[in-house]
Amino acid sequence: MKRIAVVGGRGFVGGELLRLLVHHPEVEVAGVTSDTRAGQAVETAHPPLRGSGLRYRRRADLEPVDLVFLAGVHGSTIEVLDELSALAPKVVDLTADFRIEDATRMQHHYGWHREGAHASAFVRGLPELHRKQIVDADRVAVPGCMATSAILSLAPLANRNLLSSVEVDARTGSSGSGASADSANSHALRSGVMRVFAPLGHRHEAEVAEALGVEASMTATATPQVRGVQTLTRVAVGEATERELVRMYREDYGAEPFVRLLTSPRGAFRYPDPKVLLGSNFCDIGIAVDDRGRALVMAALDNLVKGAAGGAVQCMNLMLGLPETCGLTFPGLHPV
Amino acid sequence: MKRIAVVGGRGFVGGELLRLLVHHPEVEVAGVTSDTRAGQAVETAHPPLRGSGLRYRRRADLEPVDLVFLAGVHGSTIEVLDELSALAPKVVDLTADFRIEDATRMQHHYGWHREGAHASAFVRGLPELHRKQIVDADRVAVPGCMATSAILSLAPLANRNLLSSVEVDARTGSSGSGASADSANSHALRSGVMRVFAPLGHRHEAEVAEALGVEASMTATATPQVRGVQTLTRVAVGEATERELVRMYREDYGAEPFVRLLTSPRGAFRYPDPKVLLGSNFCDIGIAVDDRGRALVMAALDNLVKGAAGGAVQCMNLMLGLPETCGLTFPGLHPV
Amino acid sequence: MKRIAVVGGRGFVGGELLRLLVHHPEVEVAGVTSDTRAGQAVETAHPPLRGSGLRYRRRADLEPVDLVFLAGVHGSTIEVLDELSALAPKVVDLTADFRIEDATRMQHHYGWHREGAHASAFVRGLPELHRKQIVDADRVAVPGCMATSAILSLAPLANRNLLSSVEVDARTGSSGSGASADSANSHALRSGVMRVFAPLGHRHEAEVAEALGVEASMTATATPQVRGVQTLTRVAVGEATERELVRMYREDYGAEPFVRLLTSPRGAFRYPDPKVLLGSNFCDIGIAVDDRGRALVMAALDNLVKGAAGGAVQCMNLMLGLPETCGLTFPGLHPV
Amino acid sequence: MKRIAVVGGRGFVGGELLRLLVHHPEVEVAGVTSDTRAGQAVETAHPPLRGSGLRYRRRADLEPVDLVFLAGVHGSTIEVLDELSALAPKVVDLTADFRIEDATRMQHHYGWHREGAHASAFVRGLPELHRKQIVDADRVAVPGCMATSAILSLAPLANRNLLSSVEVDARTGSSGSGASADSANSHALRSGVMRVFAPLGHRHEAEVAEALGVEASMTATATPQVRGVQTLTRVAVGEATERELVRMYREDYGAEPFVRLLTSPRGAFRYPDPKVLLGSNFCDIGIAVDDRGRALVMAALDNLVKGAAGGAVQCMNLMLGLPETCGLTFPGLHPV
Repeated sequence: MKRIAVVGGRGFVGGELLRLLVHHPEVEVAGVTSDTRAGQAVETAHPPLRGSGLRYRRRADLEPVDLVFLAGVHGSTIEVLDELSALAPKVVDLTADFRIEDATRMQHHYGWHREGAHASAFVRGLPELHRKQIVDADRVAVPGCMATSAILSLAPLANRNLLSSVEVDARTGSSGSGASADSANSHALRSGVMRVFAPLGHRHEAEVAEALGVEASMTATATPQVRGVQTLTRVAVGEATERELVRMYREDYGAEPFVRLLTSPRGAFRYPDPKVLLGSNFCDIGIAVDDRGRALVMAALDNLVKGAAGGAVQCMNLMLGLPETCGLTFPGLHPV
Repeated sequence: MKRIAVVGGRGFVGGELLRLLVHHPEVEVAGVTSDTRAGQAVETAHPPLRGSGLRYRRRADLEPVDLVFLAGVHGSTIEVLDELSALAPKVVDLTADFRIEDATRMQHHYGWHREGAHASAFVRGLPELHRKQIVDADRVAVPGCMATSAILSLAPLANRNLLSSVEVDARTGSSGSGASADSANSHALRSGVMRVFAPLGHRHEAEVAEALGVEASMTATATPQVRGVQTLTRVAVGEATERELVRMYREDYGAEPFVRLLTSPRGAFRYPDPKVLLGSNFCDIGIAVDDRGRALVMAALDNLVKGAAGGAVQCMNLMLGLPETCGLTFPGLHPV
Repeated sequence: MKRIAVVGGRGFVGGELLRLLVHHPEVEVAGVTSDTRAGQAVETAHPPLRGSGLRYRRRADLEPVDLVFLAGVHGSTIEVLDELSALAPKVVDLTADFRIEDATRMQHHYGWHREGAHASAFVRGLPELHRKQIVDADRVAVPGCMATSAILSLAPLANRNLLSSVEVDARTGSSGSGASADSANSHALRSGVMRVFAPLGHRHEAEVAEALGVEASMTATATPQVRGVQTLTRVAVGEATERELVRMYREDYGAEPFVRLLTSPRGAFRYPDPKVLLGSNFCDIGIAVDDRGRALVMAALDNLVKGAAGGAVQCMNLMLGLPETCGLTFPGLHPV
Repeated sequence: MKRIAVVGGRGFVGGELLRLLVHHPEVEVAGVTSDTRAGQAVETAHPPLRGSGLRYRRRADLEPVDLVFLAGVHGSTIEVLDELSALAPKVVDLTADFRIEDATRMQHHYGWHREGAHASAFVRGLPELHRKQIVDADRVAVPGCMATSAILSLAPLANRNLLSSVEVDARTGSSGSGASADSANSHALRSGVMRVFAPLGHRHEAEVAEALGVEASMTATATPQVRGVQTLTRVAVGEATERELVRMYREDYGAEPFVRLLTSPRGAFRYPDPKVLLGSNFCDIGIAVDDRGRALVMAALDNLVKGAAGGAVQCMNLMLGLPETCGLTFPGLHPV
């Protein structure tokens, strides 16, 4: 059994990580920290962990582990990384701190960048694109949820130099805003919205641009779900047919355990919809092509699983030499 | 045109009041206060007021008006009442400060009571029970939303001495929790709940007890709606038939403009459901009786309208000599 | 008082029409038909009409009126139009039958077209674009809900020849699917979806193309709301600044009673969101421009009001010489 | 590996059964039937089964198995039972056909009863009450979802003769209505309801009465969730304190793997709420006592899991000699 710690286990991503780790057959949770809840039972924040016996501790009380997940707020990783490196040979970061390599982009989107820090020390935590590097990596940075959806859905086209720039339309549920209180995020004000919170320039676009090597722009809308992310991207495909596009995706993803290409012609769920992915680690991808050379590339995932904690556990499995799908086979809960 | 002020116009009740008053043909809004938003446009808090031109001001900047609504947080009325009495001959209070007459009950449910204050100076703001007193009153205290539903649905039985005690099962949407931020009230944590926040002893039971003159106990559950209150109460009715009960309710409420007795035997909305009352000032009541002498008395209303701002405007109309239904005829928005 | 009839008063659009007409000060509802519900009270289908006394009748039992609304299923207008013309000098059609002028487009999107019928006899029911024609028209065809949002949001650019083609991303609540039962539209399967039901080529694109005189493509996603439509369109604006674009929109819409340009820089509802428009006849429009010459044009409306029944009543007001805003001043219910 | 068949695998309960069985380590799904979908992939009805390779077949094409689940519509079991008995030595029935022993009750609630059929041949599928009988049973009838919640929450009191009659207030999400289409169950009409569909006399009360040996009455309200059941029951407890009641429940349920007694005094989820049980097989129970000898007994569960498919798999595990919790350890997905 590998020993794992979660630093910043108070939020939704931390809770989801713990749910996955507690039921993972090859690891044990050796420590969970929370700045504000040290001493309290983890189940007070995450009811599904009732009976787990886990308690929050201070970061200073962590013992050495095989791997540590960093799930605190954005900006916290850079503060604690050196300290934690002594405790854990391997780090999986779920904050945004080391996702973006380019200092200008980082400065533009987050208002700071890492003077002298080595973003390049972190491998992008997308096994479908960087599996070999992740296997060998000590430090992995898991991409943002909407970035993951966009990147996975567009990589086969980027790989074939069929894209020069992309304009991504992203939609996200409320759990992506985190567990902290905010009036605009209250149930009364957040229910039933179609809230464009980033009309142009959502910061996840920087990750898309770096991962795909193209110019990227992202629009983001908050929709009424709690969980779920969907991205839609229109691309010009010239003479390519839907069949040809499907073949490209099959080539790249046919053996992937967590990427599914939806090609069924029928049914209410024939296109990617996070509704049928709740709790699962799948990213579903679909493509539609019209007779004017335009395609719509769609993708959906559960933002807390494939878009965060599940993707992180998938990386952990690779980094620790475990089967990649271990602990991640939940097929999705439906209907919810 | 009568001049009206709203003190505490930042919250949901304040916003609903302003929506009703701005479109009321016989009054004008002469002032709206907010402790924290003075100088800002009211539409920043309440988007439906876009174009109204209303701005928040400090309470010290209010000018004399014909009637003032107090819609601040519970406990605030008692602090400002004397000051405001000089500005407005008539006061309609939407806080809980003067709803309960008995000091012991007040202390038990709110942790304080009014030493030397005269609750009896306030008339309970339920026109269906106290119309004449309201017409003559200078001070009216509007009951709580769940109390209004329970009282209206049970008064015909209490009036006939058919009740000795009542156990009310109340359900409420999230707007009843107010506009302030709270993690438990965030969209992610509040969506989809059946959250029993008061298993026994919800404080609105004190109002029910005083209004009906019986012992009362209230259970309260937060349900996933934003708007809406429903109360269900089981009562023993002995030999009384449904027809006889309906006749009692017809006697009491047949001429009421805002109380409807649902007696249609068919359809998905045959029993009171706040779903079909959104934005309206109606309180719908229904009764079902089984063959063992038990009845279920049901009522539903929009907590921000009949359960707060609408009921308050109905009282205002009476206090100012206006037609009782003026500005309150919106029939409900459906489906939403 | 003008006498009005509604043919096809069973569905959501019919219900919304009746809600508006019953409370309209200058008209009376002289007849409501339903093929399947003749004889039944209208409130059995539309609970907010409790107390209206309206009953469904057969179409054959309609008496002459000043204006008739056709709110039946798509395809029904063409069947009944001749018959109704004898009863009503003026017709407002809410079906899709006469929205599209081009036979090829009609055939492509609806599978039929009007051999010999004269679509051009119908004026497009968008007062903001065709006010004068509507005033003089006997026949008006109200555009689809998503088409209305897209057209209004893009017309100022089209008017200035700044568009050559548009790709509209439309989102819609479930009430747009109508009141009929369908498993995919059941609550369990429809809740929480991000269901792309038209990845490319939604039929409302034909109306956008004809109204704006540009090529148009529309993607449509079903989102979890009951009410509400939002459209987002990315356009290349070259050197134009946000200020310049706002000025164009102000020129075109500054005097419009039901189009609002949102330019407030703050708040959760600073961009168009149907959440704050429920029950209102407003179409809110917003624009964001980045530093690379791209703009996102956003619009939102209540699909049953401005996107159907409200827009139709606005046309009726013009056609009957009534004030354009009569009966349409409800500001929106919020929060719901 | 034990071989299992599911008869009636089209509905929500069938889908949930298949989700649990496909991931169950000790069984294999040897057949799934649907009257209307024979030949189609199961994933067309249940998207989470994508990749399972399962196809619907006709009932006549079933091969012998170790155990069959009957998950068709109510009334279908009695038609197919004899036929299936030849194929499977063990039967777990999820319809209502054999839940109620008393013919009068069955006739009253379902409009028919089993002339000559032997309800007593079926053991009630509640391991917490009848574990030993289930281990030895060939035929098990799983109780209704709301009945399960009510029975489990009240059994410790009934076991100690502290109840003479119970009045259960039950709330249920829309998935309890099944997968078939119905206008009243459409998203637009079912969203946001507090729909009392059984004011008194919901048919699950018969199961409660028989299981507890007391008179029972059940009120049922449809609430806006898709999944989840909650029951609240007020009981008179005389001098008993909360501590004493908790001790009784601990005695009965302390060793139960799927019944949890919530005694934490804090937090938004301190009382049973299906929100935190989605996908899990837990039934959470809570008790609150006031100072007037009244208690509120609360319980919550996921209606498709512990209230149907999960409870059925738990019975299967016992009947086949497998560990009782096998395949049922999912802790619940939260927040959703």
